[in-house]
Amino acid sequence: MTYKVGIVGVTGAVGQELIRLLRERQFPCEIVAMASARSAGKTVTYKDETWTVVEATPDAFAGLDIAIFSAGGDISRALCPEAAKRGCIAIDNSSAFRMDADVPLIVPEINPDAADAHKGIIANPNCTTAISLMGLYPLHKEFGLTRFIASSYQATSGAGVSGMQELENQSKAYIEGKDLVVDAFAHQIAFNLIPHIDSFLDSGFTKEEMKMLNEARKIMDLPELKVSCTCVRVPVFRAHSVSITAEFAKPVDVARARAVIAEFPGVDVVDDPANKVYPMPKDFSGKENCGVGRIRKDTAFDNGLSIWVVGDQLWKGAALNAVQIAELLQRKGLIG
Amino acid sequence: MTYKVGIVGVTGAVGQELIRLLRERQFPCEIVAMASARSAGKTVTYKDETWTVVEATPDAFAGLDIAIFSAGGDISRALCPEAAKRGCIAIDNSSAFRMDADVPLIVPEINPDAADAHKGIIANPNCTTAISLMGLYPLHKEFGLTRFIASSYQATSGAGVSGMQELENQSKAYIEGKDLVVDAFAHQIAFNLIPHIDSFLDSGFTKEEMKMLNEARKIMDLPELKVSCTCVRVPVFRAHSVSITAEFAKPVDVARARAVIAEFPGVDVVDDPANKVYPMPKDFSGKENCGVGRIRKDTAFDNGLSIWVVGDQLWKGAALNAVQIAELLQRKGLIG
Repeated sequence: MTYKVGIVGVTGAVGQELIRLLRERQFPCEIVAMASARSAGKTVTYKDETWTVVEATPDAFAGLDIAIFSAGGDISRALCPEAAKRGCIAIDNSSAFRMDADVPLIVPEINPDAADAHKGIIANPNCTTAISLMGLYPLHKEFGLTRFIASSYQATSGAGVSGMQELENQSKAYIEGKDLVVDAFAHQIAFNLIPHIDSFLDSGFTKEEMKMLNEARKIMDLPELKVSCTCVRVPVFRAHSVSITAEFAKPVDVARARAVIAEFPGVDVVDDPANKVYPMPKDFSGKENCGVGRIRKDTAFDNGLSIWVVGDQLWKGAALNAVQIAELLQRKGLIG
Repeated sequence: MTYKVGIVGVTGAVGQELIRLLRERQFPCEIVAMASARSAGKTVTYKDETWTVVEATPDAFAGLDIAIFSAGGDISRALCPEAAKRGCIAIDNSSAFRMDADVPLIVPEINPDAADAHKGIIANPNCTTAISLMGLYPLHKEFGLTRFIASSYQATSGAGVSGMQELENQSKAYIEGKDLVVDAFAHQIAFNLIPHIDSFLDSGFTKEEMKMLNEARKIMDLPELKVSCTCVRVPVFRAHSVSITAEFAKPVDVARARAVIAEFPGVDVVDDPANKVYPMPKDFSGKENCGVGRIRKDTAFDNGLSIWVVGDQLWKGAALNAVQIAELLQRKGLIG
């Protein structure tokens, strides 16, 4: 069986990774390259394949099995329901539908069965949330998560190709003693930190920070979970890191914590500090698995653990998780 | 009155800033440039002054009023007691004596009166701790701090001139497509993060992380305070940032939190997120005051606040705080 899979936003950073991962993971599909009218007619290539980009109109979804959306919230809001109406399951990488009660929000390793109740749209989580939960969920299953505090160190890829390019351009300008051009981010990112991702709410939190709270509760089905998050952009290209301190209902044990993370799919324990081994963004760029290290009994909570989680923002934080959702739909017989 | 002030480790990054700050802040002193035998005979300059470096032998401290040590723990352990024995007050920037019950550990804005009981040695706190407490202590006075969780974003200046140089060299090599040389840090720092500062303890925490717990308790005189810290090196030159979530005994109020921080000396409230205003390392390099922003009612604790604190590592994190201790000694009539 070969499926027809549309990629909406195919010219973006995540779109490019979607093509790569569908092919590398040999998802049996014909790819339809889709984008806004502005990009229609352009071509995209991967190895020896070339696609001409077609405009993502409502009728363009007729006949597709799946469409993976990565073109921003506005396009998702307008077109995911149109795709669903035409029998094409929309896997949406934007935040548009994530908190919709009718839309499953899925990390396939964590809540695969949420897919069963889909009504045509399935949401892909926020990048930092998905990566964080790859470390937290196995600990939750063992010890019963009640609260966590997260501080993120988010790569420039979260702002797409232009974000990564801006880090490179500004670094180059700095080294050459030239003026730095600020465009993709609110401020200079090279050799700097920006504690501001997505827009601010009246509470003083950003939308990005509240995604961690709301999406973690939904994905792990823990509506009472207490979460606090601070999201910070750092001068790194494409892997996100998160420092997490978590409190649990049951007494914790570090050896057991390592074991349950090691047994969990999609995540590697990288935790041998005596030999300077811990996950770092340079080592987790272009890696499917997330890495968890610095696993230790926490000093601020009786039943606490602190961990450091790193994952590729474009992969587990976006394209990989979306492709894994497509694979999940296939495995469950929900497509085709 | 003009004092005689020795600077031990005068050729290092902090040593250079000590000269600058003693002069800029017009501390009335003759400076004696001191270092290990290896650097003796070299010269150091600031504006139109030049000093020949003398070897820091025990007898070299005779006749000095103050010696500020910034040459590592081994030299401090060997020579601070020798200075004290000779009537010269040692202000020590290393961690050697910080937790010694006979040694006051001082942030002048927070616990100036701890100086009264000195026995010849006064310790200067860990950089990240000093900067964090500039935001936390005014909140503690108002609301009663019980617990905080900190994740740091520490600049390369913490490893001295060679740390900053390594970030620049590696960034340049990356831009030019050359191999990166790793020397000052355990791993590549350009476009990367290293969750490892100082050495690891059996608990899985680093010594640097435990300084936050132990020194915060001592400086604020809160022996029961619960603290958890994760320290991370980031590709930034010389200002540290810290993401802090704190729990208090009393109900908190964000407007009051902003007010008490704004009233506190040595710290600026930089907190207008609607206009993209928050403290960033690029803006706090070479600034005496620390900056606090992202002040918000926390979502993980009932009486919680989250803040983002930034401060110059070489200044409030090291040289400035040491010079402020010298000024405190003068103000209190404890020297001369």
